Amino acid sequence: MNNNVRIVIAGPRGRMGKEAVKLVQEVENFELVAVIDRKNNGMMLSDVEGLPNVAVPIYSDIAECLGNVPADVLIDLTIPETGYVHTKTALQHGVRPVVGTTGFTKEQLTELKSLAEEKEIGCIIAPNFAIGAILMMKFSQMAAKYFPNVEILELHHDNKLDAPSGTAIKTAEMIAENRPEQKQGHPDEKETIQGARGADFEGMRIHSVRLPGLVAHQQVQFGAEGESLTIRHDSYNRASFMSGVKMSVDTVMNLNTLVYGLDNIIN
Amino acid sequence: MNNNVRIVIAGPRGRMGKEAVKLVQEVENFELVAVIDRKNNGMMLSDVEGLPNVAVPIYSDIAECLGNVPADVLIDLTIPETGYVHTKTALQHGVRPVVGTTGFTKEQLTELKSLAEEKEIGCIIAPNFAIGAILMMKFSQMAAKYFPNVEILELHHDNKLDAPSGTAIKTAEMIAENRPEQKQGHPDEKETIQGARGADFEGMRIHSVRLPGLVAHQQVQFGAEGESLTIRHDSYNRASFMSGVKMSVDTVMNLNTLVYGLDNIIN
Amino acid sequence: MNNNVRIVIAGPRGRMGKEAVKLVQEVENFELVAVIDRKNNGMMLSDVEGLPNVAVPIYSDIAECLGNVPADVLIDLTIPETGYVHTKTALQHGVRPVVGTTGFTKEQLTELKSLAEEKEIGCIIAPNFAIGAILMMKFSQMAAKYFPNVEILELHHDNKLDAPSGTAIKTAEMIAENRPEQKQGHPDEKETIQGARGADFEGMRIHSVRLPGLVAHQQVQFGAEGESLTIRHDSYNRASFMSGVKMSVDTVMNLNTLVYGLDNIIN
Amino acid sequence: MNNNVRIVIAGPRGRMGKEAVKLVQEVENFELVAVIDRKNNGMMLSDVEGLPNVAVPIYSDIAECLGNVPADVLIDLTIPETGYVHTKTALQHGVRPVVGTTGFTKEQLTELKSLAEEKEIGCIIAPNFAIGAILMMKFSQMAAKYFPNVEILELHHDNKLDAPSGTAIKTAEMIAENRPEQKQGHPDEKETIQGARGADFEGMRIHSVRLPGLVAHQQVQFGAEGESLTIRHDSYNRASFMSGVKMSVDTVMNLNTLVYGLDNIIN
Repeated sequence: MNNNVRIVIAGPRGRMGKEAVKLVQEVENFELVAVIDRKNNGMMLSDVEGLPNVAVPIYSDIAECLGNVPADVLIDLTIPETGYVHTKTALQHGVRPVVGTTGFTKEQLTELKSLAEEKEIGCIIAPNFAIGAILMMKFSQMAAKYFPNVEILELHHDNKLDAPSGTAIKTAEMIAENRPEQKQGHPDEKETIQGARGADFEGMRIHSVRLPGLVAHQQVQFGAEGESLTIRHDSYNRASFMSGVKMSVDTVMNLNTLVYGLDNIIN
Repeated sequence: MNNNVRIVIAGPRGRMGKEAVKLVQEVENFELVAVIDRKNNGMMLSDVEGLPNVAVPIYSDIAECLGNVPADVLIDLTIPETGYVHTKTALQHGVRPVVGTTGFTKEQLTELKSLAEEKEIGCIIAPNFAIGAILMMKFSQMAAKYFPNVEILELHHDNKLDAPSGTAIKTAEMIAENRPEQKQGHPDEKETIQGARGADFEGMRIHSVRLPGLVAHQQVQFGAEGESLTIRHDSYNRASFMSGVKMSVDTVMNLNTLVYGLDNIIN
Repeated sequence: MNNNVRIVIAGPRGRMGKEAVKLVQEVENFELVAVIDRKNNGMMLSDVEGLPNVAVPIYSDIAECLGNVPADVLIDLTIPETGYVHTKTALQHGVRPVVGTTGFTKEQLTELKSLAEEKEIGCIIAPNFAIGAILMMKFSQMAAKYFPNVEILELHHDNKLDAPSGTAIKTAEMIAENRPEQKQGHPDEKETIQGARGADFEGMRIHSVRLPGLVAHQQVQFGAEGESLTIRHDSYNRASFMSGVKMSVDTVMNLNTLVYGLDNIIN
Repeated sequence: MNNNVRIVIAGPRGRMGKEAVKLVQEVENFELVAVIDRKNNGMMLSDVEGLPNVAVPIYSDIAECLGNVPADVLIDLTIPETGYVHTKTALQHGVRPVVGTTGFTKEQLTELKSLAEEKEIGCIIAPNFAIGAILMMKFSQMAAKYFPNVEILELHHDNKLDAPSGTAIKTAEMIAENRPEQKQGHPDEKETIQGARGADFEGMRIHSVRLPGLVAHQQVQFGAEGESLTIRHDSYNRASFMSGVKMSVDTVMNLNTLVYGLDNIIN
């Protein structure tokens, strides 16, 4: 008898997808059984140049794939539109989805949750697979209960277009759930150069540093009389996401509902 | 009707005790009703030079004090021998103790716990009142579940005699509960100067920095493929203990047993 | 024969002045010979309650003091108006001034410089005695030659009114001397919350963090392809200024002109 | 007339060599004119699979190369034995060498220096091209003059075999030139777990952290009464070496002797 978790990966061509194929090959009881790719239908993955050299079939249509290949888990690392169809189809086939996306609507999530519960199988939708980042956010939220004074510093390479980062805003939102809105700093403080005090999010401040050489870093700093508490996450490369993918695959096998966000399966 | 928490402070002459007197005066619904001091029995606190100017009576004997002055909570910041007697006497009088000490024996703790439960009142014994430090330890313990590779750096002023610090060892113990013992670093790593890799605690490493100017700082650093998670606490002065004392007083009013360590009342 | 440096301190009642009196007593070859204070003329310092217990005379008039008491150095820690008169009078008496102030005008500095050179004695005017802070600024200026991409983070207690701090602006000015003006970050970057990218100083960014518990901290962060260089200064209390005062006294004995700023005597 | 710097690269197949080829193509007035490689003599670089697609000739023999191809600078990124021959030959042909190596003997350096001065051309031998790391060391050495209390923390991935790192030892040596030997920490300090206080280098302490995810980081921390000064370098990848190679090429054109170490051309 075989206790392997049989896995289908959708999106094996992307950066995350490639890491996921590597991960599945490295974990002892994980087994790659097929991939979903919009090109090369009917070929073997090992036949396509530039893709990992694993002898599993490529399908362009997920229903056909899941109809032909027995599978336990779908790891979906495509775009939201495709991902939604993949997730729904997987659930209908009794295959547990692990999906990396921020793009599903509330209605889609509600629908997928009903479907998962009807089928009594797990489904994990994760906007972020970096466990370190998730712990940083969770700890920050917990600390805010005792330390209402907090500022967020996020530091990224200078190719990043938006400031603050999505992670910084998500962190601020999570902190805000445990912290009454209050303007920080001295009531009469003055910016002699505009912007010095950073972005204002419900009275807490967010500062965005952009420099060449940096990758993705965030520091959440709490202050109280006589002490500071600092929680920092440094992300150096995409490999950091894979521990979250692995944990999700392990966990989804024991769920019978949909969970949104890895913070809800960490304790 | 008065909803104030009526507080007796033992040890008002010490550094922590002075801060506690200040705290009790500043918190709106806290009310200082007496102090326990081995000197100046029968005088008023405000009559003693060098002590805070508050008009409350000084007692040298705790039983006499609690017999005369109605009180809800005893904050004890004395030494272990005295503290034990104070705690026991307070419980016998139905007064809830909040005690800052690391010095009680297991037997004493067991006895005091029975007494608290018999009287159905709360009692908090805290080796450490710095909430920031406690959160640092608690978060480190939680993170160890997902990040088994961790090193501890603790940095103190160069008058400190022991290395590693008590907090570093306590942190390592808490992490060890969530982390299988494993030797970290490369299996063949070599120290070309002895001690470079720090102190070995179940395979994780502790490094002790001692420099003038520093106060008390600790950084717990976790590493995994592609990422780091860092939790740091900086303590600048004793004022940082007072938020823990305040939380303890608030909490002890709603307990009906003895709790050891603030980590058990933080969630 | 006595090789002590005989020192007069003006402003012994202030916070800096008190530290200076302590310093002069602790350094082996420094000797306090008098103090200048607007009150208590004719008394001994040791007779005034709340001032250090040293048996040296108090003068309210500096000319009278320097006429009566042979001295080598005047340490002036008063306000600019008084300090200017003190400095000029000291130079006229052949006594070398070490003055902590930011308040002298260009004309005053030019005049005092001429006077020092005429008398062929040293004079040091220092806006900042914290050697650590001065090294941070100097190193930042040097690094800017090789790393034109830089952001400044300054962190202070939340009682501070102005943002950015004076030290941050001074640092930015010094960096600007070694760095061509250039807008940093991505040309198309967007602030989704205003102020996220901080204050703009010739295209480099300054971020001001304000939290209780903090004292005075500054971090200058340089980035280039594949690396970061960070220079940080943490100031915990006024004692940190005294090493700069000591160095100034030592140095002023060997100068025969006026030097403005300790960065010009550090190498 | 052409003002380009004509460059030959030895070792284009290695990791550093590949980055150097890329660099030379990107810098406006740099021109790659040939490469030295022990294989593929006589072919064009663009004809060899896996090497950069640049149409310059490959030579296995440096004398033949420099005899045929007019060049200004040789960038040598090979091993010490080969590098020594290359450097000597280049000097003999009037070509200025920029060599990345730690492996030359004192005798070899003396000989090469004489040769450079005889030919009146520049030659740069650099054990380290990371300008950020060099500035960290130089600033640390400068700061030690004012801050004799210092500890070094170096943090690397856990594949590293030696502790402390070579850079940490080099830094300690440079600091030691400006700092009297003195045992740091409290004279009576005790390690309750051996190694906690790190490696002892003339009384200053070095701590080596090894964790997965880390790359190469070093923090030099100075402490004095009331303040800390911290200098930190983070190296994320080999691209960081290229700014040092570029500066060396620019500088070597204006030298007429041999310089060992980039710290001697930084000011």
